[in-house]
Amino acid sequence: MFEATKIGRSVSKEEYKEQQEELRTQLLAVQRELRNSNIAVVVLIAGIEGAGKGEVVNRLHEWLDTRGVQTFAFWDESDEERERPRYWRFWRAMPAGGEIAILFGGWYQAPIEHHFRGLCNDAELDAELNRIVDFEQMLAEDGALIVKFWFHMSEADQKARLKELARDDRSRWKMLPEKSRFSEHYATFEQVAERVIRHTDRGCAPWYLIEATDRRYRDLTVGKTLLHAMRARLDETNGTDTSLQATDALELPASDSAHITLLDRLDLDLSLPSEDYKGLLKHYQTELNELAWAAYHKRRSTVLVFEGMDASGKGGTIRRIAQAVDARLYRAIPVAAPSDEERAHHYLWRFWRHIPRAGRMTIYDRSWYGRVLVERVEGFAKPTEWRRAYSEINRFEEQLVDSGIILLKFWIQISLDEQLQRFHERESVPYKRYKITEEDWRNREKWPLYKEAVNEMIARTSTQHAAWTLVEGNDKRYARVKVLRTICEALTATLKTPLQPRTGYWPCGDKRLDQQGDKASQSKPNH
Amino acid sequence: MFEATKIGRSVSKEEYKEQQEELRTQLLAVQRELRNSNIAVVVLIAGIEGAGKGEVVNRLHEWLDTRGVQTFAFWDESDEERERPRYWRFWRAMPAGGEIAILFGGWYQAPIEHHFRGLCNDAELDAELNRIVDFEQMLAEDGALIVKFWFHMSEADQKARLKELARDDRSRWKMLPEKSRFSEHYATFEQVAERVIRHTDRGCAPWYLIEATDRRYRDLTVGKTLLHAMRARLDETNGTDTSLQATDALELPASDSAHITLLDRLDLDLSLPSEDYKGLLKHYQTELNELAWAAYHKRRSTVLVFEGMDASGKGGTIRRIAQAVDARLYRAIPVAAPSDEERAHHYLWRFWRHIPRAGRMTIYDRSWYGRVLVERVEGFAKPTEWRRAYSEINRFEEQLVDSGIILLKFWIQISLDEQLQRFHERESVPYKRYKITEEDWRNREKWPLYKEAVNEMIARTSTQHAAWTLVEGNDKRYARVKVLRTICEALTATLKTPLQPRTGYWPCGDKRLDQQGDKASQSKPNH
Repeated sequence: MFEATKIGRSVSKEEYKEQQEELRTQLLAVQRELRNSNIAVVVLIAGIEGAGKGEVVNRLHEWLDTRGVQTFAFWDESDEERERPRYWRFWRAMPAGGEIAILFGGWYQAPIEHHFRGLCNDAELDAELNRIVDFEQMLAEDGALIVKFWFHMSEADQKARLKELARDDRSRWKMLPEKSRFSEHYATFEQVAERVIRHTDRGCAPWYLIEATDRRYRDLTVGKTLLHAMRARLDETNGTDTSLQATDALELPASDSAHITLLDRLDLDLSLPSEDYKGLLKHYQTELNELAWAAYHKRRSTVLVFEGMDASGKGGTIRRIAQAVDARLYRAIPVAAPSDEERAHHYLWRFWRHIPRAGRMTIYDRSWYGRVLVERVEGFAKPTEWRRAYSEINRFEEQLVDSGIILLKFWIQISLDEQLQRFHERESVPYKRYKITEEDWRNREKWPLYKEAVNEMIARTSTQHAAWTLVEGNDKRYARVKVLRTICEALTATLKTPLQPRTGYWPCGDKRLDQQGDKASQSKPNH
Repeated sequence: MFEATKIGRSVSKEEYKEQQEELRTQLLAVQRELRNSNIAVVVLIAGIEGAGKGEVVNRLHEWLDTRGVQTFAFWDESDEERERPRYWRFWRAMPAGGEIAILFGGWYQAPIEHHFRGLCNDAELDAELNRIVDFEQMLAEDGALIVKFWFHMSEADQKARLKELARDDRSRWKMLPEKSRFSEHYATFEQVAERVIRHTDRGCAPWYLIEATDRRYRDLTVGKTLLHAMRARLDETNGTDTSLQATDALELPASDSAHITLLDRLDLDLSLPSEDYKGLLKHYQTELNELAWAAYHKRRSTVLVFEGMDASGKGGTIRRIAQAVDARLYRAIPVAAPSDEERAHHYLWRFWRHIPRAGRMTIYDRSWYGRVLVERVEGFAKPTEWRRAYSEINRFEEQLVDSGIILLKFWIQISLDEQLQRFHERESVPYKRYKITEEDWRNREKWPLYKEAVNEMIARTSTQHAAWTLVEGNDKRYARVKVLRTICEALTATLKTPLQPRTGYWPCGDKRLDQQGDKASQSKPNH
């Protein structure tokens, strides 16, 4: 989930200066408009220690008209607060319609801290997060705009930042990794943070993950995100047509350093000599064949998801998997426009249909992620629809993994040049010609929008239990072997461990598969 | 919560016959209209064993055009189902847009059964209920109409019904109280049922509690509720103006037996001779004074809520409490129209403001229940707003109780005749004249609407942790003493037991009050 906050985005001094002025002007204009509305704005500031949360808040105060902004930090409870229900302090901080409240940590502060310190377990944390979801939904349904920022950086960057701040009183940092066990604590903190964000990242109160290493990038991104969010809400309230991408508001500087995405970080030059390819392909295909049978006997199902640009080589990769796995054990589902019957159901329904039986494999060639990719970019889904889809998808995948399914998601990336070359190749080879259509060319033009959508998709849905594997796809051989190797490694690792249900509860469900393990392994499958 | 399902509502054979025909005609018409919409209707049938869930479903099949209706029972999982994530079976049952699916038990069946059998604890049940809330919300946001029926009856009625069904195979009943421990099991089942309903009764997927003793009343009510729900949704989709009360659809028979509410079950003739009154008043006031101080020293706060018809005697009762309690320990909050500042916040905000400090008492003269009473009846709140308020209020009160607050809610009921008499009295007594306005007379005319609202309010918000006390108010003396006695009894009972936080988790919070117990008890309060 945090990969996208560790890729080194930055904004130069000149760019910052230039942009800041315009941003301030627009923020003040939006704030004026806000004051005449009845929209209460709740800005929540959270993140890793040392990310400069205080600096960001100071910056916002500098940019906004302070008459409509109040900031609240929730340090130790006062006597007054301790003697009342826990949320009393947050209700005190609630902004009136037309005003902005900036909350340090807010209702997230204590649960994260408690979990980090081992004072509560996962289930207790989840119960508290559910209360939070209900609370935020209640505010949102009442018309409040909730914007939640999470500031993050890599371990190395945090270490460096904290050294820089060394003269400060260390007691300020409540969730600071101890020097001696920095890495371990950093990882622990990331785990709880991911759990919290995944659980509470809802359409009506989304989290924005901000890379905090470069201060100028950080502050500018916060300012613009807040501007976009307020602008979009005001337009919605006024019935003004909101452009899908809110492009009417300020954009980040055009320089590459501010726009790097995870995809740009991929080394697309990675390749595999054809003399190595044959051997490796054979090796992993043989291994996969055995693993697929082993999975069948252990009744562990596998779901593979393939997404990628047009002509990125999804089909070819899937064929290499299909060659390896016994045809009775897998099903490949090509996902195109939904059928009439599928369209009459919830968008997840058509994917639920194909969830494999115990021990089998389903390969989705494109998937439920269409909701936040093509449906978002083409406007087939409304913004509210695709925005809430992230958490719907995370919960869907959680159910799959909880039931013991091995879930692997691949994004295959190719450069625009490579895509162009493949398109031309397809046009010139008779038996490939059917694969290239006008639509492919149109999609190509929309690549900047897709790139934004892909980046957000990965940031919001690459979770501990269902991480994305990004595949460098310019060299087909390299990509195929990487995918096969990833599948083999995941299957090997999973099949070693017994089925461990994650939900804990579900007395019948937990043992559902195990009970039948022996019986099933005696006979061959029959779809 | 289940009080309203044990009051003996019934429909005569003649009334039933007469109404059935019209109901069927309208149901078929609505169903035809539904088929051309993309609204998927999910009807969930659950409730106490022996309530006749199967009979209801058969009746619905008789009334509806079966071509658009499918029924699903979720008995033991099939092999196919066992080998997939738990919810796969429910996704299989999902109706397409324009169709109706009737689900026996649905996703509630297993969690209720597991908890009833002691296979999971409260926290595990809650976690599962949260998944259910997310799931239903996802369906509702996608446009599905979810109508959940809970069939219930008194212990005696269930016993009788089961005797009647004695010839049936008893193995059919999975959650049947054992003969030898009937009462105990009945109570256990009610507890889990209430927990489930309270947690999952949301605006987007409400529960309808149906009294199941009289079969005609039961079936007619189900049919009409379903009709109303479909009609309202279709109107909403078509942009047709939906009347607030859906009065365009069929009403229940006009006979009293079908319209009894909890309020009708009150014996308003109860009275207290004035010679007894003085002594009792004095007795309880003295006791209350001592208890209020004891609560102060034990740092237990009290919140009292008074609701009732105009002139029902709320003010007089509150004065009798105020006379008893040291003025430094309580605050009385008269709730009228909100101030500008209050109006600019969430409707609960103005009540949160007055939550008492540890050991104090807040008396609300009218309260947050205005949302589902006056705001509903007068149309100040939209139907979606007051409908979701029930669960918002339940969660708000849960927070109060969890923090150790003693919460008591009183509904004071008087007859319309008594109200008339009091209105006239007010008009004739100079110093009472200010208390009667045009509005009071208007409200009086709306009594049938208020009655409906009050009944639903009590059914949906009388929970184990925050039950309503219904007060027979025609005799002021009787009412005052009953209220005082109830408060004294509740305080006595609560102060005996140490503060037991219910949320379990919250490492700091749990001991928040105890830590300071000693310090505080040494000094007098200072608001």
